[in-house]
Amino acid sequence: MKPAPESAPQRLAQLIGHSVAAIDTPALVVDLDAMDRNLQRMADYAKSHGVKLRPHAKMHKSATLSLRQMQAGAVGMCVQKTSEAEALAAGGVSNIYISNEVIAPAKLQRVAALARALQARGGRLAIAVDSLLGIEQLAQALGAGENLIDVFVELDVGQKRCGVAEPADVLPLAQAIAAHPALRLAGLQAYNGRAQHLRTVAERRAALDEVIARVQQARRIVEAAGLSLPLVTGAGSGTFGLEASSGVFGELQAGSYLFMDADYARNEVDTSQPQFEHALFVKTQVMSVSAGHVVVDAGHKSHAIESGLPRVHGEALEATGCNDEHTTLRATSSAPLPALGASLWLIPGHCDPTVNLHDWMVGVRGGLQAGTVAEIIRVDARGCLD
Amino acid sequence: MKPAPESAPQRLAQLIGHSVAAIDTPALVVDLDAMDRNLQRMADYAKSHGVKLRPHAKMHKSATLSLRQMQAGAVGMCVQKTSEAEALAAGGVSNIYISNEVIAPAKLQRVAALARALQARGGRLAIAVDSLLGIEQLAQALGAGENLIDVFVELDVGQKRCGVAEPADVLPLAQAIAAHPALRLAGLQAYNGRAQHLRTVAERRAALDEVIARVQQARRIVEAAGLSLPLVTGAGSGTFGLEASSGVFGELQAGSYLFMDADYARNEVDTSQPQFEHALFVKTQVMSVSAGHVVVDAGHKSHAIESGLPRVHGEALEATGCNDEHTTLRATSSAPLPALGASLWLIPGHCDPTVNLHDWMVGVRGGLQAGTVAEIIRVDARGCLD
Repeated sequence: MKPAPESAPQRLAQLIGHSVAAIDTPALVVDLDAMDRNLQRMADYAKSHGVKLRPHAKMHKSATLSLRQMQAGAVGMCVQKTSEAEALAAGGVSNIYISNEVIAPAKLQRVAALARALQARGGRLAIAVDSLLGIEQLAQALGAGENLIDVFVELDVGQKRCGVAEPADVLPLAQAIAAHPALRLAGLQAYNGRAQHLRTVAERRAALDEVIARVQQARRIVEAAGLSLPLVTGAGSGTFGLEASSGVFGELQAGSYLFMDADYARNEVDTSQPQFEHALFVKTQVMSVSAGHVVVDAGHKSHAIESGLPRVHGEALEATGCNDEHTTLRATSSAPLPALGASLWLIPGHCDPTVNLHDWMVGVRGGLQAGTVAEIIRVDARGCLD
Repeated sequence: MKPAPESAPQRLAQLIGHSVAAIDTPALVVDLDAMDRNLQRMADYAKSHGVKLRPHAKMHKSATLSLRQMQAGAVGMCVQKTSEAEALAAGGVSNIYISNEVIAPAKLQRVAALARALQARGGRLAIAVDSLLGIEQLAQALGAGENLIDVFVELDVGQKRCGVAEPADVLPLAQAIAAHPALRLAGLQAYNGRAQHLRTVAERRAALDEVIARVQQARRIVEAAGLSLPLVTGAGSGTFGLEASSGVFGELQAGSYLFMDADYARNEVDTSQPQFEHALFVKTQVMSVSAGHVVVDAGHKSHAIESGLPRVHGEALEATGCNDEHTTLRATSSAPLPALGASLWLIPGHCDPTVNLHDWMVGVRGGLQAGTVAEIIRVDARGCLD
């Protein structure tokens, strides 16, 4: 197996200090000024509300950006996959929570090795569980030793995906965790991904009322049995203000706030939580022009469309179709269509899977029109699926 | 910029000779026996119908599989992107057609360099155009020299994407190509991607009637002006039998036939063209079990869903939802749900963008149940967007 051609990163590194006009297309571009404002805004919000912030790195998959979030006050990072945790750890992140279930014994061996490695450098690994089998296999992988990993019981709080179905189901898992010296019962994982994208504030509040009621019920049941759930962790960029002010959640896992996307932009604004700017763009070029439409050179291999088509930043254009390598745009006003060769900036429909399509992000300062390339950011955990 | 952790390919290489049970999840798995049958079936069909076969490598993005298709008779490969062409050329493929427009002068410099490099080793590069500007910039990038690249004029044949809008619009582009010594007027690019997925045979035939009429009209106009369009190239896995028997198309560009996917499986079968087997799967594991559903550890970062959710191979299960790292399945019969930890095989909704999410394909012989890992195939052009 021969290595991949390394011409792309070399070309990208040469961009530093040059105008944004020099960025060839398609390219994933981060407006670093907007990103910094988003980063600080969320850090300030968490601090002022007395909740921990543990941003989800499944979104940007970057150790560099993780460390920047932690420098601003985040207690650590969330990931969804063992290999994501390994990639961030290799990049210098030492406090990582796999907010997801891992069942395969081969992967649990890697989880155990990572838990010991992070502890040896003064860090910590955490993981979620929703089954007795998962707890037993995790304990078996860890073997002898005390307090090697933090374990959160996942409760389904309305997403109907993973997690035990009922608050009462948390107790037997909490007891099983407490029975293993290598495992520390760290609390409750309570995340409702669906609630993030309910369009009205009223719908999101109603969904969070259910989340909070189920969390409180689980906590009462576990505490009545003489155990405690020290931390409730969850929340996303659509609802975090509700979790933060609940008095129940101690940690926020929002991730998308750093970049934002077209899907979140379709939410009714909740004025009770801070607002964030679009900081992630796909730079693209008009490659074909017809009487009624233009085609740009970035399709859904460049920007994920499973949560909707991209928006076109600052232009009276809308996407009408998208294939692997093409997106078709038409005018939404009587203004002329852009010319063949023109540069356009797409705001992706969904930031997380968009970043995962790219090996590198081009970081720009000074804006998308007149700015300069300031840094190239590696997507360390790109393609880390297992 | 430090290199990516290379643990994943090392783990994969160690699988060779082991049972499919040893493949950790999620993993992209190719049933090599089924793939070989698909490969030979299409090669035989093209030969027996007197048309050239130039499979589209945007689907598998692999130099290894490209060379296997060419050994079976394919005249070369299609790609959509300059960087895909570079990746295949680096892997030993010498006859490549970029069946898409390239406008940026920086990329056209790379096209020109690749054209000369392939010619120097006895191969050939081809490219599509749909604008005078594109032709002029291509000629400028190539500079002095004769007959350095094959150029196809793209005609929109019903997809409403790229290509000149009307058959009469082909002539001025053909004349502009013929005026540049470095460019060879190779023919017409005529592909209707939409037609591939029209569900009934009658709809696909009606769409192809329009394609063929437009191609014939363009040809008449160009020939009346004293030029010729030596080759008409196009066709996909949904309609290639219609192009092959048209008497107009000389080359088929189908790609998906090698792996197939759930979207193509929804087409009504056209008994006038050979049938193909599913050869591409995402191996996944049940990571969470509830009363009414199970969740597997492969989401749309593992398998593309923009053309529909995946099917579950050989099980009475259907996908009801999909997030970045999870797919939710429910039973379609009264049979019990699979157990926590069980392995399942997803047939992706769309093969091309699914392959692009993976760095490696695990090649299996002897079937998915009792088979053995025979080879690891690199996705050479994974992430080659520009």
